[in-house]
Amino acid sequence: MAESPQARERMVAGAADMIRRRGLNATSVRELAKHSNTPLGSTYHYFPGGKSQLAVEAVQFADALAARKLAKELPAGPVNGLRAFVDMWRKVVLDSDFQAGCPVLAVAVEDPADDGDAPQRAAATAFRNWTTLLADSLRAHGASDIDAEQTATVIVAAIEGTVAMCRVERSTRPLDQTVDKLELLVRAVTGAEAT
Amino acid sequence: MAESPQARERMVAGAADMIRRRGLNATSVRELAKHSNTPLGSTYHYFPGGKSQLAVEAVQFADALAARKLAKELPAGPVNGLRAFVDMWRKVVLDSDFQAGCPVLAVAVEDPADDGDAPQRAAATAFRNWTTLLADSLRAHGASDIDAEQTATVIVAAIEGTVAMCRVERSTRPLDQTVDKLELLVRAVTGAEAT
Repeated sequence: MAESPQARERMVAGAADMIRRRGLNATSVRELAKHSNTPLGSTYHYFPGGKSQLAVEAVQFADALAARKLAKELPAGPVNGLRAFVDMWRKVVLDSDFQAGCPVLAVAVEDPADDGDAPQRAAATAFRNWTTLLADSLRAHGASDIDAEQTATVIVAAIEGTVAMCRVERSTRPLDQTVDKLELLVRAVTGAEAT
Repeated sequence: MAESPQARERMVAGAADMIRRRGLNATSVRELAKHSNTPLGSTYHYFPGGKSQLAVEAVQFADALAARKLAKELPAGPVNGLRAFVDMWRKVVLDSDFQAGCPVLAVAVEDPADDGDAPQRAAATAFRNWTTLLADSLRAHGASDIDAEQTATVIVAAIEGTVAMCRVERSTRPLDQTVDKLELLVRAVTGAEAT
């Protein structure tokens, strides 16, 4: 079978999309083959580790996507990074008509399967990567080590929780409410004046 | 079949426990009967609406549990309520060795099933109930309407997100970090001095 990086990447993106809509448990290699219009044999060819491997790569895909957004926007300051992060999630819930959330959170709220906790460990890494990017930016803008770490953790946690609230409320109101107070917190720990 | 409120309540608590560990999709009436040591027939007797009814009642059970905790602790002030809420979740993740989180969040991150979105609507109600209790307390302690509503939303969202982070990190560190900054926010909007 010819290798195709595009086909592989399409399958990983498809897995991330399935997980952020229906959760990890309801996602299967067979369903993914159907979802991404790929023969089942190809799916196992690209992902010999089966569902666990696919879930890990789907989480890493979502991790990298959000990390790239943060890395691009944080150089203009932590408030800018925060707002871009929130806008990214607002687009996810709106574009999916409130049917999709964050695949990393979806994996984090389910017990590890019998074949190990690799997807959950990838989720922990994703949360950590985003927190580190935000904390570095907060520190660079004057926050103390502890303020930077705590504030970055609150931002990631609050946005993840808010995305879930938006889905069941079928409204972006929780995100709009959350971002204002997270910005207040960022300004408080960096000593930045409100604009 | 004789009615037994105790048996019924045990099944609802069992369903909440399954959902907060493995998610809604992996929870079934059949598994619950096994999990709570109840004949399958009794389960359907008490819950003729099947899984959807069970999920709604499990979410309402978790909703009421957290609401009771908040209603008990908030009269001593919003910081006290916040700390009690966080302590409750810390106990959930520690007592389960990081295997259990919040059943409301678990339901909120999954697509509604074919038989309707009643569990997701119950989840939206739970988030709203907790937010309202916190917002009322913040307002009673001097926060403006908008500050109270936004801060209450951030608290619920951040704690829900943090519980998921604790599970995959297998540590309560994220909760410990989050609560300090949420307290800062509460003090900022109520004008309370740090103690």
